[in-house]
Amino acid sequence: MMTQHRLTSRDQAQARDGQDCLAPMRAHFALPDDITYLDGNSLGPLPHAVRARMTRTVNAEWGQGLIRSWNDAGWIDLPERVGARIARLIGAPAQAVFAADSTSVNLFKLLSAALALRPERRVIVSERGNFPTDLYMAQGLITQLDRGHRLVLVDDASAIPAALCDDTALLMLTHVDYRSGAMHDMAALTHQAHRVGALTLWDLAHSAGAVPLDLAGADVDFAVGCGYKYLNGGPGAPAFFHVAERHADAFVQPLAGWFGHEAPFAFEPQYRPAPGAARYLCGTPPVLAMAALDAALELWEDVDLDALRAKSLALTDAFIATIEGACPDRVLELITPRDPARRGSQVSFRHPQAYAVMQALIARGVIGDFRAPDILRFGFTPLYTRFVDVFDAAKTLRAVLETRAHERPEFQIRAKVT
Amino acid sequence: MMTQHRLTSRDQAQARDGQDCLAPMRAHFALPDDITYLDGNSLGPLPHAVRARMTRTVNAEWGQGLIRSWNDAGWIDLPERVGARIARLIGAPAQAVFAADSTSVNLFKLLSAALALRPERRVIVSERGNFPTDLYMAQGLITQLDRGHRLVLVDDASAIPAALCDDTALLMLTHVDYRSGAMHDMAALTHQAHRVGALTLWDLAHSAGAVPLDLAGADVDFAVGCGYKYLNGGPGAPAFFHVAERHADAFVQPLAGWFGHEAPFAFEPQYRPAPGAARYLCGTPPVLAMAALDAALELWEDVDLDALRAKSLALTDAFIATIEGACPDRVLELITPRDPARRGSQVSFRHPQAYAVMQALIARGVIGDFRAPDILRFGFTPLYTRFVDVFDAAKTLRAVLETRAHERPEFQIRAKVT
Repeated sequence: MMTQHRLTSRDQAQARDGQDCLAPMRAHFALPDDITYLDGNSLGPLPHAVRARMTRTVNAEWGQGLIRSWNDAGWIDLPERVGARIARLIGAPAQAVFAADSTSVNLFKLLSAALALRPERRVIVSERGNFPTDLYMAQGLITQLDRGHRLVLVDDASAIPAALCDDTALLMLTHVDYRSGAMHDMAALTHQAHRVGALTLWDLAHSAGAVPLDLAGADVDFAVGCGYKYLNGGPGAPAFFHVAERHADAFVQPLAGWFGHEAPFAFEPQYRPAPGAARYLCGTPPVLAMAALDAALELWEDVDLDALRAKSLALTDAFIATIEGACPDRVLELITPRDPARRGSQVSFRHPQAYAVMQALIARGVIGDFRAPDILRFGFTPLYTRFVDVFDAAKTLRAVLETRAHERPEFQIRAKVT
Repeated sequence: MMTQHRLTSRDQAQARDGQDCLAPMRAHFALPDDITYLDGNSLGPLPHAVRARMTRTVNAEWGQGLIRSWNDAGWIDLPERVGARIARLIGAPAQAVFAADSTSVNLFKLLSAALALRPERRVIVSERGNFPTDLYMAQGLITQLDRGHRLVLVDDASAIPAALCDDTALLMLTHVDYRSGAMHDMAALTHQAHRVGALTLWDLAHSAGAVPLDLAGADVDFAVGCGYKYLNGGPGAPAFFHVAERHADAFVQPLAGWFGHEAPFAFEPQYRPAPGAARYLCGTPPVLAMAALDAALELWEDVDLDALRAKSLALTDAFIATIEGACPDRVLELITPRDPARRGSQVSFRHPQAYAVMQALIARGVIGDFRAPDILRFGFTPLYTRFVDVFDAAKTLRAVLETRAHERPEFQIRAKVT
């Protein structure tokens, strides 16, 4: 099945781009001509609309409008408005989603809620390979509460159902694994968690804007996600949280800042939570960053998410097939599922010298990610990635491996961030 | 003493501006010609340097550099570098201060630390008039811990020393009151708290960039502050935290995100706190907002903080004297201390129709703040406020009150944010 998707020439790749209904979206992004960018799952590229929005927000709204822009430019409503844009992409009601803080901080709020809503239970189930900050935030909360909670980590996704029991308060998973790109069955696992009376918290960092999601249909309780990957909101963009409406008024989360108060500008000494998920807001929203994310999200308004998914799978299929056709000596070990139903929007290979290989690729203008200890990660962000990018990246990777370019000493030294 | 500072003509005000050694700083800001901006203590104006920096960060660093800019443009070090700039303004060692998150989120981290470092004690002492989010975050933490902690609020600052006892874990105060502008004696109160074995947490929202501070000299334990007021970092700019070096390694704070890990990019499943105050970082830093704050802080490099304080007091003296000379019928009640040692960098009056008066002033181009229920607040931000602004604001306020302009119906309806 894979071989039919192998790209054997750049012309063939261009022909496929010519048939891509999403191809016009690429023009909305500032992508340098001299690089093949396969790292939009670490940092999405700059949408041109963000330039104009930042100019307006900085010069007109801040510079001229000054404090009046909290009302006149609608700064005050940005967490809600940006949240509503994200809600559409993740299949959730608008009022259940807000943009705020970082993913880590939002995890703490929702973890606190989940444990409070299951007061007799003591276990959070997750994966040892979950993104570290998710595990760290759970560890931080458990230590702080000091009530005997435990984080139970499974080594393999197949072990999750058996790990759920009547002491499980929460199943906390990242929907698409940041290393392998393996995707969980959100609806099935949520159902299994609910069957034992547990709640669910899904991290959508590698899902929102990458694959169609249906949080409402899957009956998800809580979710967090990232603004700077597939949503292209800029480096360190605000994150988002989702709280199912049935839980929204059931708990007062501990990061009880004034923007989650029912009447922030009444300046009352006693906290009164806002109704609904708005109580999960905390401090003053970062307007410049929110404005950038808001402008980036405007691009999604007319995007067909099923077409997006089809293109994502076509790109990742093509990359796997082209790499495997080009590098038959199996020095690269595919760790991304071949089954499309279990694959996110990235392709990852193990290589014993993965760091050096990625450095050699970057030196040749192909930007992917290294993930310790031995993973090459390539993000195929279907809003702007082309089949020619697949072809060029595969060709460059083959050239690096054939010439052993990665063995040059300058590619062996690790930078601070990789 | 006050009457000698009264401004009786615009020429006289201009003459005082001519003698102001800080006067050239105003040219660094985009201040509209048609307004008198006395609200820099809510939102500082746009520094021209921020425009250029945002263009560079958005177009070159994000647009062209993409993911590489975490290293190449130094994004990864922004929390530390911005923190070091702030440290100089607050009299703290560079390594004790980081820019991160919102003031509210930082309060939660430091409150958690303070209670953990005084495990046998159950009381946080603060003021009922403290800025609400400070009280809310303490309430949120106390509720979450559920270990019998109490927030004891005094109604008057003079009652603070008597409220401190051997059950006091923490004295949490805002250094300059957001309504009255009254300033605490940081060194004396910190000393009194330490004498009973309590720790101190100071909120510097209305102090950093407004008055000289000496956190090291006052032996302050913890502090937070705001980037978007006197520091001019932009709407919702990142906040900062300060952790005294003697406490920095003593506790692992609960918001244990990956940027506070000793090796974030090792992607380990177990949290290991970074050494020192860096462990109080949490999620991915908001780069666009950090860059704006960083550029705004560059302006402070050559500012003499004693000259800043002298100008601040001269401005507030002149405003009090000019208002009281112009409005002798005492419809305005000064609530800001006349004693310069107890005054921050703002002047506040009570007026029974304060909301409508402020709306009438804003309609005439004089922008201050209303604070519920009856306070007119005028911020005199000495980096760019002029004596002619003092004169113009006083003249306009007199005209509003004399003509009863505030009684017009359009000024009676409250907007969502005021």
